Amino acid sequence: MSHTHVDGALPSVLVARGVEAALAEDLGTRGDITTDATVAADAMAIATFGSRREGVISGLAVAKAAFDALKAGVAFDALVADGERVAAGSVVARVSGPARALLSGERVALNFLCHMSGIATLTRRYVDAVAGTRARIADTRKTTPGLRAFEKYAVRCGGGQNHRSGLYDAILIKDNHIVAAGGVAPAILAARRYAGHMVKIEVEVGSLAELAEAMQQPVDAVLLDNMDLATLRKAVEMVGGRVLTEASGGVTLETVRGIAETGVDLISVGALTHSAPILDLGLDFLPVDHA
Amino acid sequence: MSHTHVDGALPSVLVARGVEAALAEDLGTRGDITTDATVAADAMAIATFGSRREGVISGLAVAKAAFDALKAGVAFDALVADGERVAAGSVVARVSGPARALLSGERVALNFLCHMSGIATLTRRYVDAVAGTRARIADTRKTTPGLRAFEKYAVRCGGGQNHRSGLYDAILIKDNHIVAAGGVAPAILAARRYAGHMVKIEVEVGSLAELAEAMQQPVDAVLLDNMDLATLRKAVEMVGGRVLTEASGGVTLETVRGIAETGVDLISVGALTHSAPILDLGLDFLPVDHA
Amino acid sequence: MSHTHVDGALPSVLVARGVEAALAEDLGTRGDITTDATVAADAMAIATFGSRREGVISGLAVAKAAFDALKAGVAFDALVADGERVAAGSVVARVSGPARALLSGERVALNFLCHMSGIATLTRRYVDAVAGTRARIADTRKTTPGLRAFEKYAVRCGGGQNHRSGLYDAILIKDNHIVAAGGVAPAILAARRYAGHMVKIEVEVGSLAELAEAMQQPVDAVLLDNMDLATLRKAVEMVGGRVLTEASGGVTLETVRGIAETGVDLISVGALTHSAPILDLGLDFLPVDHA
Amino acid sequence: MSHTHVDGALPSVLVARGVEAALAEDLGTRGDITTDATVAADAMAIATFGSRREGVISGLAVAKAAFDALKAGVAFDALVADGERVAAGSVVARVSGPARALLSGERVALNFLCHMSGIATLTRRYVDAVAGTRARIADTRKTTPGLRAFEKYAVRCGGGQNHRSGLYDAILIKDNHIVAAGGVAPAILAARRYAGHMVKIEVEVGSLAELAEAMQQPVDAVLLDNMDLATLRKAVEMVGGRVLTEASGGVTLETVRGIAETGVDLISVGALTHSAPILDLGLDFLPVDHA
Amino acid sequence: MSHTHVDGALPSVLVARGVEAALAEDLGTRGDITTDATVAADAMAIATFGSRREGVISGLAVAKAAFDALKAGVAFDALVADGERVAAGSVVARVSGPARALLSGERVALNFLCHMSGIATLTRRYVDAVAGTRARIADTRKTTPGLRAFEKYAVRCGGGQNHRSGLYDAILIKDNHIVAAGGVAPAILAARRYAGHMVKIEVEVGSLAELAEAMQQPVDAVLLDNMDLATLRKAVEMVGGRVLTEASGGVTLETVRGIAETGVDLISVGALTHSAPILDLGLDFLPVDHA
Amino acid sequence: MSHTHVDGALPSVLVARGVEAALAEDLGTRGDITTDATVAADAMAIATFGSRREGVISGLAVAKAAFDALKAGVAFDALVADGERVAAGSVVARVSGPARALLSGERVALNFLCHMSGIATLTRRYVDAVAGTRARIADTRKTTPGLRAFEKYAVRCGGGQNHRSGLYDAILIKDNHIVAAGGVAPAILAARRYAGHMVKIEVEVGSLAELAEAMQQPVDAVLLDNMDLATLRKAVEMVGGRVLTEASGGVTLETVRGIAETGVDLISVGALTHSAPILDLGLDFLPVDHA
Repeated sequence: MSHTHVDGALPSVLVARGVEAALAEDLGTRGDITTDATVAADAMAIATFGSRREGVISGLAVAKAAFDALKAGVAFDALVADGERVAAGSVVARVSGPARALLSGERVALNFLCHMSGIATLTRRYVDAVAGTRARIADTRKTTPGLRAFEKYAVRCGGGQNHRSGLYDAILIKDNHIVAAGGVAPAILAARRYAGHMVKIEVEVGSLAELAEAMQQPVDAVLLDNMDLATLRKAVEMVGGRVLTEASGGVTLETVRGIAETGVDLISVGALTHSAPILDLGLDFLPVDHA
Repeated sequence: MSHTHVDGALPSVLVARGVEAALAEDLGTRGDITTDATVAADAMAIATFGSRREGVISGLAVAKAAFDALKAGVAFDALVADGERVAAGSVVARVSGPARALLSGERVALNFLCHMSGIATLTRRYVDAVAGTRARIADTRKTTPGLRAFEKYAVRCGGGQNHRSGLYDAILIKDNHIVAAGGVAPAILAARRYAGHMVKIEVEVGSLAELAEAMQQPVDAVLLDNMDLATLRKAVEMVGGRVLTEASGGVTLETVRGIAETGVDLISVGALTHSAPILDLGLDFLPVDHA
Repeated sequence: MSHTHVDGALPSVLVARGVEAALAEDLGTRGDITTDATVAADAMAIATFGSRREGVISGLAVAKAAFDALKAGVAFDALVADGERVAAGSVVARVSGPARALLSGERVALNFLCHMSGIATLTRRYVDAVAGTRARIADTRKTTPGLRAFEKYAVRCGGGQNHRSGLYDAILIKDNHIVAAGGVAPAILAARRYAGHMVKIEVEVGSLAELAEAMQQPVDAVLLDNMDLATLRKAVEMVGGRVLTEASGGVTLETVRGIAETGVDLISVGALTHSAPILDLGLDFLPVDHA
Repeated sequence: MSHTHVDGALPSVLVARGVEAALAEDLGTRGDITTDATVAADAMAIATFGSRREGVISGLAVAKAAFDALKAGVAFDALVADGERVAAGSVVARVSGPARALLSGERVALNFLCHMSGIATLTRRYVDAVAGTRARIADTRKTTPGLRAFEKYAVRCGGGQNHRSGLYDAILIKDNHIVAAGGVAPAILAARRYAGHMVKIEVEVGSLAELAEAMQQPVDAVLLDNMDLATLRKAVEMVGGRVLTEASGGVTLETVRGIAETGVDLISVGALTHSAPILDLGLDFLPVDHA
Repeated sequence: MSHTHVDGALPSVLVARGVEAALAEDLGTRGDITTDATVAADAMAIATFGSRREGVISGLAVAKAAFDALKAGVAFDALVADGERVAAGSVVARVSGPARALLSGERVALNFLCHMSGIATLTRRYVDAVAGTRARIADTRKTTPGLRAFEKYAVRCGGGQNHRSGLYDAILIKDNHIVAAGGVAPAILAARRYAGHMVKIEVEVGSLAELAEAMQQPVDAVLLDNMDLATLRKAVEMVGGRVLTEASGGVTLETVRGIAETGVDLISVGALTHSAPILDLGLDFLPVDHA
Repeated sequence: MSHTHVDGALPSVLVARGVEAALAEDLGTRGDITTDATVAADAMAIATFGSRREGVISGLAVAKAAFDALKAGVAFDALVADGERVAAGSVVARVSGPARALLSGERVALNFLCHMSGIATLTRRYVDAVAGTRARIADTRKTTPGLRAFEKYAVRCGGGQNHRSGLYDAILIKDNHIVAAGGVAPAILAARRYAGHMVKIEVEVGSLAELAEAMQQPVDAVLLDNMDLATLRKAVEMVGGRVLTEASGGVTLETVRGIAETGVDLISVGALTHSAPILDLGLDFLPVDHA
């Protein structure tokens, strides 16, 4: 099913470090004292991760890794794949093993799964909103500190596209760079001289005049920032497909389709990662006969 | 101003580690190639952090630490204090120093400041919604992985109160613990035997019958989970002030006042940390004469 | 056997980090050059951990983890459980596997096991000394830097009870806090306002007058510091069971029973963790036929 | 004063890491909630580290580093030097700065200072006990996990001498190595072939026969393990100053002088680091006028 | 001087981590025992870093950081800039401060400086060899593990250009990818679909036929692998400036100019980072009057 | 086969850390985007590591660990042993497993293997050059920062001998120490007093006069620095086998045999680790039928 295919898994070392940090944060040096006090060490349990709402799932491998990190022999079986859309009430995974480990790992697993699925779900809403246009939905660097790789993966799960990973892997010339370099053209030329041959250059422009200046230079993409729809349309026309066009600035679910219909190639939305509410998932324990 | 007094700063080592991880994430091993290409090494700049929306500020010391970590001599002057409510358009801090450092640290500083202020702002809305009642607003363990200390601090900035920090510092007996222990009373007694004398015990109850059973035992607080208002009122009455009462489950800005008016001591709201949109702040560069 | 039941295992991530740091400390970057020089890579061996003295065992899982961390396929079989009292000459565990790994991991395993068992053994002596009274024996924050979680676990293995884990999980108001706050009552009230509902508050008092002042305020426990037995008895009487009473200051094996007989609930002893001699255990290699 | 001269400071990076780990252990993610609740952020204080008992001081630079790590501008002035013997009641250092930082760093500073000074003090007692003989007192690898460098430094502060740092920097052939290698001579020869030219070789012998065999080989030192005094004397005579002689096994303050008088060069004592009680030091706050 | 201008400094956090790891490696837990034994703690010294050979300097900031990390107040004054060509016998920096710190930090500073300057020097030789052609010299991912950022910076110091930083920041389709994808065209199309809009795509071709196939697809660069000069010339002609051309494979100082004269844009040379001998620099101590 | 026996494996924790750091450097947070784009997740592959040149292999366990760290089930079978000499064209190991993992781990595995084998190969050339003399070839502390343990192991693989591991494990008194201590004799005596009994002392001398002075003192070895052959011969004669003699300074493959024939015990060569070119190995994928 193509809608469940997600491009590029998270590097496993990254996942392991992320869940270990989260477990350390939750367990401290004393561990889960409630569970240790009330649950027998040899009690076994089975539980299911269920989604309370309709949404798009992201983070199953991370949730699995949270239990793996407890080294207690918990089995984790995903019933859907990352990137898959699920209905409210769906079971997305099943875990079984020592009851203590299920209870102690539950919150860390859920915190990742709900946060990442929340981003995937919001991304998918934007992607669906522009269906039929040429526009793709992209994320930004407005991510939660420490979680960028996880959040950018979640955007891919929602059908979105990743913008650059950080300051290091592509050049995006913004207004302050232009001022510092003494204009659009000097900024682009400085960047071109500086950048390796595998580095793309995008330049942010705020007006058609700036766009005209940028189009004289060797850029790979133009970021049309905070333009109204009419201006956007003119900008797209002016570019004429020679470079990629990206729109940004105040994009909402209400405005995104209009923007997409101007013909831009890409619409970047900070809210995907900085303001997505979680997708509400929970862990439900099945009744177990006690040994 | 008492509303701007925040209880307890973040440990400085924690702040330093957080911003270093975020800078590493954004700068990679190659650094800010756009800025290095377009901005002279000796260019100086001044910029101000401004809030585009009304809200409550949290994270100024973290934003400052982001520039400190670049070791470039950036001066950061906060104009408001964490916990202070600001109007849209307010300037909250001013930075000056090498233009390269301001540009390279900008996003990390903003990502923390916007995220934390978003949480503080949402918390404050809940706190204001229950003004005049005895209820205080508390957070949960439903936090973004790796950022719990930052988010719980932000909740305090918004006037909220922190629930336990993790699984390790207090006992909260939930339904699955009760099942595993064989009932409310056995669970509480096991916890009491297990816990040190400085550890409080709270038990989650879903019905007045369970509450009655819990009140027979030495608990410090009861978590009244997902009860309707009428039941909540009866529960508060049944407790009669002997232990602290906490309500939770599906709390929204619309429902929180009604819940508060039942007389509960505390209302815990997962959304404070798992679903708060950011407070939109930006960094505005002032025109500078070029040397 | 109830005396061998220890409440709450050490989080496994903590154990792994502890043994890795200790192995790095002992192996450096060059490894065990004596063993590599003199023992064939394919030599196998069997050895037993034996206690030279009577005592209480703690740290078997840590000793096991030390061999696990060498990833050499060593089998570790514990013959007793943590918290169990053993006679001089007892075998407490058996290891088998490559002789090199047994020899290279021996000292790290023993350093943990002897140190933790030493603490458990001393704790047990205090616990036994107060048998039949209501007093429990507790540890303090006077622990060896970096090993607090291990040492507090060892105290539990000896039948003791953990006081707070650190500065972060409970409030203990001492003399300097009282001076800074302007008195016992202001200090307690400030703490009560500050602390979340899951945080307990204990206040240290040095006289019956201070105790009387403290008892007017909402505290969970009082620390009766350096009082003579007569004063302690009066203090216990004055409290009348309304809050928990803890005695501390210069407690020794000689004085502890007298203190316990005053009726205090808890006696905290820094020496448990800061001055316990090791329990002398060794690793004895069995003769093996050479292949 | 020669008795206060200590050979070789601890590497500063090591000290910084050690105190950071200890502070993290004590402050958690929430910090010192008692102090934050009761002490004003701008209150200043002065306090002195005093020794309650006669002893030898070790760890002043570590104590200083604990306050430095809080980055709060605490001034730390040592009044004695590491390695110096102090009388009961002596003030060893003075700290001044924000009261919150003094209180929050106090325990970490003391835990290092008391532990290290305890080791220095016990070492000094052994060193004094053998005064006038040729024997020096040495430590072993029986150290507290994670603290070996600190403890070996403390041994030097007490006038003792460090044995090898770990398994990596010298060869010490013990009984199991001898068995594995097929005898004393094969073990030494294997070690000689294996070891670089800057690596010394010591061999443990349990009898005069083994000693005789070892003396035929190119060893740098012999470890005379668990021999009675008469045998020790004969062993020393047999060696005749050709290699260094070390005695070990069951050494106590009562037996050490007798052992020294056999003429051995070195006596190694595991108890220096594995069983030294702390030296009792405390931090006393001076009355301060409140601003 | 344009030849001394280096594009983009190393992120300071990276430099600090690198020198700390190297110092830890050299100092262990015991420190510089030779220096501690023979040099007075208060002895001051002055020394100069001199180049024994003609070459290009790289790594002065790293050398400085090595002394800074010792926190001993060493002053480091660079007399040339990274990227500058120096004659044999040149003094490149001057250090002054405590003699112990100069001696203990010397080797770490030199190991970085000699290694990085060796790479810069070799790079410059390649760059000079192609002077007057359009070809630039680039590095590869064949770097020393753990030092890639340092080595790529050194390449820039030598006038070279960095290829991609890692597997993560650009797409380079090689023969095995082509086989796996089922051909040149499917591989490029899969990459185009997969890659974000800021990611460039280069494809390796081994023949003119493959080149022809690649040129039908949306690629940014072609890597002409192991082609003879005649084929390279034809390839450059076939590309006609539409995309960037890179030559690689068995490039030496003898062959590089011929390759450059084929008209390729870029020549990548693994040897720059995997086989550059050091530039021989040393630290010379000046005679100092003893205080 | 004795020529393939290498003394002392690398500690496994060290290997794991090294490959994890290298993988993180190469994969970043986004992973291997080329492979993820073009190779099916379920494609399997087989490939062989082959040496393009004659040389000595070192680092097979490190290469294996690189694939292990990806946790993808790659099987790694070494066909030769570390320390073994291989002909050009030899296959040294075979890997099989998911094609994605083979491609993503390839460069890290090769970077270690080529670098370490390059050092082993160069070492072996020096060792062979002195065959039949008493001289052994040793490394120095002139290693690549962060890789010393790996490089010293590679020297052992080439038949060389390790000098001290760092500043911490042996004393090497150089010219600046001698000046600081006030002469050869005072320096040695200070070192002797300072050093533990398991620490060897070597002193660097530049003339026969200095050598004569050193030989009056208790040293274990003398480093004859930069002496011509005639002087070296006289120095060896003067020492007369009483201590170990080491020659250093400007040693090349051309000069090393002459130096060895002077009768010195050891010749140390910085170039082994600071200037060895790689041994060129590559990973060749076998054709696989596609499933």
